[in-house]
Amino acid sequence: MPDAEIIAVGSEMLTSQRIDTNSLYLTDQLNSLGVEVRRKLIVGDDRMLLTAAVRQALEYAGIVILTGGLGPTEDDVTREAVAAALSRPLLFHQEICDAIEERFRRRQRKMAEINKRQAYVVEGAEILPNTNGTAPGQWIEHQGRSVVLLPGPPGEMKPMFEAGCLPRLIQRLPTQVIRTRFYRVTGFTESDLDALIAPVYTKYANPSTTILASPGDIQVHLRARCETAEEAERLLAEVGTPIEKLLGRHLFSLTGEPLEAIVGTLLRELEATLAVAESCTGGMVGERITAVPGSSNYFLGGFITYSDLLKTELLGVDPALIEQHSAVSNEVACAMAQGARERTGATFALSITGEAGPESNSGVPVGTVFVGFAGPDATDAIRLGMPGDRTRIRGFATQAALDLLRRRLLRIEET
Amino acid sequence: MPDAEIIAVGSEMLTSQRIDTNSLYLTDQLNSLGVEVRRKLIVGDDRMLLTAAVRQALEYAGIVILTGGLGPTEDDVTREAVAAALSRPLLFHQEICDAIEERFRRRQRKMAEINKRQAYVVEGAEILPNTNGTAPGQWIEHQGRSVVLLPGPPGEMKPMFEAGCLPRLIQRLPTQVIRTRFYRVTGFTESDLDALIAPVYTKYANPSTTILASPGDIQVHLRARCETAEEAERLLAEVGTPIEKLLGRHLFSLTGEPLEAIVGTLLRELEATLAVAESCTGGMVGERITAVPGSSNYFLGGFITYSDLLKTELLGVDPALIEQHSAVSNEVACAMAQGARERTGATFALSITGEAGPESNSGVPVGTVFVGFAGPDATDAIRLGMPGDRTRIRGFATQAALDLLRRRLLRIEET
Repeated sequence: MPDAEIIAVGSEMLTSQRIDTNSLYLTDQLNSLGVEVRRKLIVGDDRMLLTAAVRQALEYAGIVILTGGLGPTEDDVTREAVAAALSRPLLFHQEICDAIEERFRRRQRKMAEINKRQAYVVEGAEILPNTNGTAPGQWIEHQGRSVVLLPGPPGEMKPMFEAGCLPRLIQRLPTQVIRTRFYRVTGFTESDLDALIAPVYTKYANPSTTILASPGDIQVHLRARCETAEEAERLLAEVGTPIEKLLGRHLFSLTGEPLEAIVGTLLRELEATLAVAESCTGGMVGERITAVPGSSNYFLGGFITYSDLLKTELLGVDPALIEQHSAVSNEVACAMAQGARERTGATFALSITGEAGPESNSGVPVGTVFVGFAGPDATDAIRLGMPGDRTRIRGFATQAALDLLRRRLLRIEET
Repeated sequence: MPDAEIIAVGSEMLTSQRIDTNSLYLTDQLNSLGVEVRRKLIVGDDRMLLTAAVRQALEYAGIVILTGGLGPTEDDVTREAVAAALSRPLLFHQEICDAIEERFRRRQRKMAEINKRQAYVVEGAEILPNTNGTAPGQWIEHQGRSVVLLPGPPGEMKPMFEAGCLPRLIQRLPTQVIRTRFYRVTGFTESDLDALIAPVYTKYANPSTTILASPGDIQVHLRARCETAEEAERLLAEVGTPIEKLLGRHLFSLTGEPLEAIVGTLLRELEATLAVAESCTGGMVGERITAVPGSSNYFLGGFITYSDLLKTELLGVDPALIEQHSAVSNEVACAMAQGARERTGATFALSITGEAGPESNSGVPVGTVFVGFAGPDATDAIRLGMPGDRTRIRGFATQAALDLLRRRLLRIEET
């Protein structure tokens, strides 16, 4: 199976405001055929640099797709650069010129002389008609590789890819089936997770394993490429099943759904309701829970008790408890969760109280957070110690609270 | 002036779901020093391809910046690839290893053996300390060129660039004076804003004007590059002063501070306190206000009253009012703000009630939001109608609430 490189041409995509998004579409299309994109390059309107880039891409990639730089102006250099990279001449095609001229005529406009540049084609290229613009695309077979020139505007590029490139790719590529498994995990650092599962996945090149980490939320992707679906599923099971066992209670999603959606589904299934009482997170747990459409079916609301006084007045936390244990304590977290549950009538309540920094006001170290959980049977709290700055600590604490809720709803024992 | 290439390392950025955004920040920083980015490359976790890419970049670029691939796992290959490209050995630095170990120890955790990989440095590299993570960066001078290794997570990359790279770049680059003005604006669409100020700024190539838009928050940057500071300041005043007049009450920050920090400063100055009552935003206003360190000086807390029942029970909203006007109404927004103010004893209170979609439950169209404000003198509410999906509507509503607070605290009249 050949690998692909996508080259986006255009100086505007080298500014801080613009980004190449054509490659996302192309990657999706190529991946679904089993082709891996191994590099993406963005290069300005510079003939020399682009010529060198095409040569570099051809050193390893069997498919090189260029988008952009097919316009009529002097700074549209893709045609010239590809011709130079392949050491082939550019040839003028009268029938393309006629088609462009006709397109202008239909719009009661005269073709500018400059548009003739768009009628030049690399010798030996197949022409990909442009149904939505003037610049035709080009498909070039070169020493067993395919070099494809597509226009930059997505409205021209996508229909051309579908009509002109997909059929040619399907014809050239060996048939392959891709099957994936997806795990979303919390409660690990990336390195701890990797140390745990690397002994399993490093034994296999197929399926390939990718680990993506953001604070408190790690995604593990397995992707198997085989000749048959059965073989792909068999390989996925061989690698995935032991990984799932190792991840254990930390594995919260097999579908990619975020934690707030997972707990939402659990609450719905239990026909239960939820309330929150947040101190250092200031509303972040509520915000995430209500980001899920339909959360009004199970989320009642809650309290942001940032000041100690409000912990007492709104949640009924005994001031003596705060005095004795500090506001950041197991005792206060429990009292907050209980207060939120009682005062809203919710089935379950979560509470968060902690030190998000930059300074500590409560005597405990920055990064110390207590998450409380109150339900019909019992109330308790867990203590967390987290690294990082205020943003990271609050994000982690929110994730930990949602995960505590998940585990309690599933009656998963703490370890 | 040298050119730059930015290389983003990581297979996840070659999927159809992820994109390299670090390069936008780096491009902005480099451009402001007068350095052009001539190519951007995204390459997977592949040592051979990355080695070749670094060699290719060094053929034309005086500054090569790599982001990502500095983690502890086997697929983090940036260190090895750069060392190979420069034909230099990697050396183990005990003091880096000690620092990483110490970082783990402070968090009551043991460093995994695998993290030792992060203590390897290309021979001759200067080490760029990482204040927000384990992987140090590296700055390598090589045959008159600079090769820079930065971590991938933006929260680590940006502070490291500012502390470690900016001073080194400024020292190496020819002097040029750059002066900037910065405006942060709310209450406009990007196109309306541009139509308003374009007649001023399009007359000038220097200062250059850049407009960056995100929902409800537009940033306008003016950047003058001159030989002297006086000339730069004179040009900035010539363009900036008329723009400031046009922006009027929509201009909320000259420093880049977000709205939650601006209102925080105003509340501090007034020695006033704030409470919130949130329905459709579910805690997002509280979350933003408490993202500011020291917000406990003026923010007391508040209520997440997602259900109608909690609007009544926690805030004392008359059920007849909800019955008559619906929960998404001017009347209920006012009653929520009043209730929050009375029950917390805060000087001011903000409330939000609205339809964030995807379906409407209250009879008003999706995107309708009322923001209430209660103070010692009066209570009232404004009605907003916003486009977009749930995420966008909630974000807009939160921004509008913070901006209403700002204008009320500054006693800016509605127009």
